[in-house]
Amino acid sequence: MRRPDHQTTTLTAEEVLAPYLREQAASFLRGLRLQREHSAPADAGTQRADEAARALRHAARRISGTLHTFRGALEPVWADQLRAELAWLSGTLAREHAYATRLGRLMDALHQLSGASLPAARPPSGEGAAETDKERAALGVGAARAGALLERRLTLARTRAHSAALQALGSSRFHAVADAVALLASEVPLSSSAAEPAGLVLHAPAELAEQRMLDAVAALPPDEAVEPYNEAHDALWHQARQLLRLHRYAHELLRGSPDPALVGPGHALELHRDAAEAAAAASAAARTPRIAPATAYALGVLHADQRHEVEAARGVFRETWPRTAAVTAS
Amino acid sequence: MRRPDHQTTTLTAEEVLAPYLREQAASFLRGLRLQREHSAPADAGTQRADEAARALRHAARRISGTLHTFRGALEPVWADQLRAELAWLSGTLAREHAYATRLGRLMDALHQLSGASLPAARPPSGEGAAETDKERAALGVGAARAGALLERRLTLARTRAHSAALQALGSSRFHAVADAVALLASEVPLSSSAAEPAGLVLHAPAELAEQRMLDAVAALPPDEAVEPYNEAHDALWHQARQLLRLHRYAHELLRGSPDPALVGPGHALELHRDAAEAAAAASAAARTPRIAPATAYALGVLHADQRHEVEAARGVFRETWPRTAAVTAS
Repeated sequence: MRRPDHQTTTLTAEEVLAPYLREQAASFLRGLRLQREHSAPADAGTQRADEAARALRHAARRISGTLHTFRGALEPVWADQLRAELAWLSGTLAREHAYATRLGRLMDALHQLSGASLPAARPPSGEGAAETDKERAALGVGAARAGALLERRLTLARTRAHSAALQALGSSRFHAVADAVALLASEVPLSSSAAEPAGLVLHAPAELAEQRMLDAVAALPPDEAVEPYNEAHDALWHQARQLLRLHRYAHELLRGSPDPALVGPGHALELHRDAAEAAAAASAAARTPRIAPATAYALGVLHADQRHEVEAARGVFRETWPRTAAVTAS
Repeated sequence: MRRPDHQTTTLTAEEVLAPYLREQAASFLRGLRLQREHSAPADAGTQRADEAARALRHAARRISGTLHTFRGALEPVWADQLRAELAWLSGTLAREHAYATRLGRLMDALHQLSGASLPAARPPSGEGAAETDKERAALGVGAARAGALLERRLTLARTRAHSAALQALGSSRFHAVADAVALLASEVPLSSSAAEPAGLVLHAPAELAEQRMLDAVAALPPDEAVEPYNEAHDALWHQARQLLRLHRYAHELLRGSPDPALVGPGHALELHRDAAEAAAAASAAARTPRIAPATAYALGVLHADQRHEVEAARGVFRETWPRTAAVTAS
């Protein structure tokens, strides 16, 4: 779907919008078919089921983002309604994936924590060696228990999310969404302005999406405000991630491909979200009643590690964010 | 005491060694006098008492390092014996200071953890705001308890170390050391080779001290081996710190000032030691029987934070370490 930008000045808004939405709708329906084929409980977490779910989420986000940004060129009541329904659906479908990612991330971190770091080069009677052994042992026991606790909690949450997703996919509410998307694959409900040149109709909303992203990035706490446990800042970063995503979809629609300058920052914001959620999961697990202090201790270590990864992701974002604000969507 | 290096070729070893040792001995005795004046329990931790103790440790380390590196130019039996006694003394005196530093470091970290990071810019209904509040509250309670526990433990350890230092300073063993250092301030027991040119007698041992440092640095785990919880690697880093210190004293003796290229790496290794010991203190406190999970959790966070500072110090060391091995002591 690569299309040189100058074509948006010779094409109508409809000629740019409709093929993009039709393509995403077709991709959504393909994902849906695959998802149905692999939705048996035995299939949960298999590669095919994961791929189907990913394709579905991918298309749902793009349709929803396009309905949001280019609402003016579409039939507005229809656009608002479908967008709300797609938000419900992709939220429901994303949850299972999110729990699986979180568990994987925390297990990797625990593995690093407890495992396999007795080096060959260790001096036979290093200073504090006995103390080191005690530290390692304490962390080892706690890490194993914390791992078991997190696995229990997140597997349960994932299973529940899986059931909720299956239930959603069987609901009449879902069938209405699927029908609306099927309709979209053949015919896009447009407003009268869609007949005008794409440049006239689509550039302003794309620029607004970009400006919102730039504003959100400008509102991020400055570099000097770095504090390891400023969870309260997370929301500002999550907002920047969502607005960057909306800008990316608009760019994709108008130019046929994502803005290469924003791939790095976008990836950093995804890692930021994953690490922040993993830290919150460690913290939530530590509030389980009657856990052993060693378990709580390992969860504390895990929480801190993930918060350091949050910090690191913020650093990567700042490094990769283009200095000049010459990121243009149109 | 700045002395251009070329003078070491025209001076005898005695003319270089003896003034340095006499100066350090005088500084030791001055520190001792001050320490006695401010050693009342009420004075513990005051600025004057701290300064006296610092001067004493500073001189004791330099005398001891010089006796070690340039043993060949000194009366060897005397040198070995005084060195062993100085190691005992400075070990005893350093402990109180180390506990105070550790407590200060951990309290600062806890303060950062629990405190004051609710930003003005917080969105009113950010995603996960309630969750964030719960995290903050849990960490706040745990951090306060962990702070109280650490303060109790480290203040007790510090008080014990203070008593031990006072006891040491009143012992006949200490009076023998003080007498030996007082003797050193007037007359340095030398070997016959001390009458030979300084270049001939002192350069080889100084180069050996440098080579040992370079070997220790070369033996440090490579950059890629970075793992957050490799406490077992700490001993290699502590060894590098001690050998860098010995090299620094030799350089100071021969050139009259420390090697400027090693100030940064030396400082990084001090921070490394402080962070590693603070992490171990958090871990040890977490093994206190019957502590609340929230306390253990905060101690885990603290442990992880200090281990991240250990990592950061290793990074700073690698960045500031001179690329070319053209660091020469002589």
